[in-house]
Amino acid sequence: MDERFLKIKEAVEKELSCSAHDMDHVMRVYALALNLAKDEDVDMDIIQAATLLHDIARVKEDNDPTGKTDHAILSAKMAAPILIEAGFPEEKIKHIQECIVSHRYRTGNEPKTMEAKILFDADKLDTLGAIGIARGYVWVGRNSAKIYTDTDIDKYIEENLGGKINGRIQDKTKHSPQIEYHTKLKFIADRLYTAKARRIGIERLQLYKDFLDRLEKEVNGEL
Amino acid sequence: MDERFLKIKEAVEKELSCSAHDMDHVMRVYALALNLAKDEDVDMDIIQAATLLHDIARVKEDNDPTGKTDHAILSAKMAAPILIEAGFPEEKIKHIQECIVSHRYRTGNEPKTMEAKILFDADKLDTLGAIGIARGYVWVGRNSAKIYTDTDIDKYIEENLGGKINGRIQDKTKHSPQIEYHTKLKFIADRLYTAKARRIGIERLQLYKDFLDRLEKEVNGEL
Repeated sequence: MDERFLKIKEAVEKELSCSAHDMDHVMRVYALALNLAKDEDVDMDIIQAATLLHDIARVKEDNDPTGKTDHAILSAKMAAPILIEAGFPEEKIKHIQECIVSHRYRTGNEPKTMEAKILFDADKLDTLGAIGIARGYVWVGRNSAKIYTDTDIDKYIEENLGGKINGRIQDKTKHSPQIEYHTKLKFIADRLYTAKARRIGIERLQLYKDFLDRLEKEVNGEL
Repeated sequence: MDERFLKIKEAVEKELSCSAHDMDHVMRVYALALNLAKDEDVDMDIIQAATLLHDIARVKEDNDPTGKTDHAILSAKMAAPILIEAGFPEEKIKHIQECIVSHRYRTGNEPKTMEAKILFDADKLDTLGAIGIARGYVWVGRNSAKIYTDTDIDKYIEENLGGKINGRIQDKTKHSPQIEYHTKLKFIADRLYTAKARRIGIERLQLYKDFLDRLEKEVNGEL
């Protein structure tokens, strides 16, 4: 990481200082994006800056009592002065901002350039595999959710997600990584843009599934 | 589970009603103990009652501001009236209480009978394997600890465990499942009493280690 990116990283760390968890995520996405970008014809400056900055407004979103802050949009905005300070030219800053805005699916801004697709994919892959499992149970701990459930998924969607597979969770204490897997995670690999990310995604999903199957056996005292 | 044990379970659920997490643990220990007991010459009444009741005072210990409550000793005490009510004879109640008291290493009461050893082993196995991984990250979430660290273990023991491998964690936000594995979990299989539990323990430890190795690769963007 050269001097420019160290400065950007420092600015992000300052914003995420009360959430070591979020900063760790940023650095994982950074590392994975570099890997995804390796065999692609992309601008590595854009990849590095966009991955480092993509969640800079995450704590601001979490702390907004109105719930109106979209961290993707605000992160893009906050990125500008940092990138100017680090000496990036205007057209690169614009490209980096586009990557940041489109990393979040819900905003409706789909990633268009290869750099934006790589950020999107690296960010989503961090919910799968061993790291996805770890993050899933951290969420369980924070939200007093369930370590294990053998819930009927269709019934759960009806009763706890307002009838929509990607609906808002109404009672987090009834949620579990199994439910997360069956309502959300298992569809992620298909939504990734780059071939390499899809390959990693399929493998990470399998690891997640194997873990859940193993957990079920242990919970039932079988292994 | 016959009528007597359903009643015991109900009494335990009442005591642990504010901690679904603890009750789930009780039922896993119950299921696993039945498995460990399968090929042994043991009294299944004792196994069932002792596993159901072993943590009944867990919430009372957690809520004791003086920190003096030992849930193993208090659980044994609380078990008595429940077992009398369920119609257990005096000598069985005494045996069940001995099992409960000795399930906790720290009290210095080592398990003596096969039934006590099975409860001890089943309880410890619940910290290993997929369920151990899940519980480890739930702990991370609750205590704002780290998902991943590559800490120097010797230095950590010196700086955060008061120089003793099983010392009290001084700063939980610096702890991680890796550290837990290297300071505590990897020694558990050797401390189990029954051959079957040791076999399961070794296999669950390997699964834990493989998970941590995989996690490390993902964190570094390699997989």
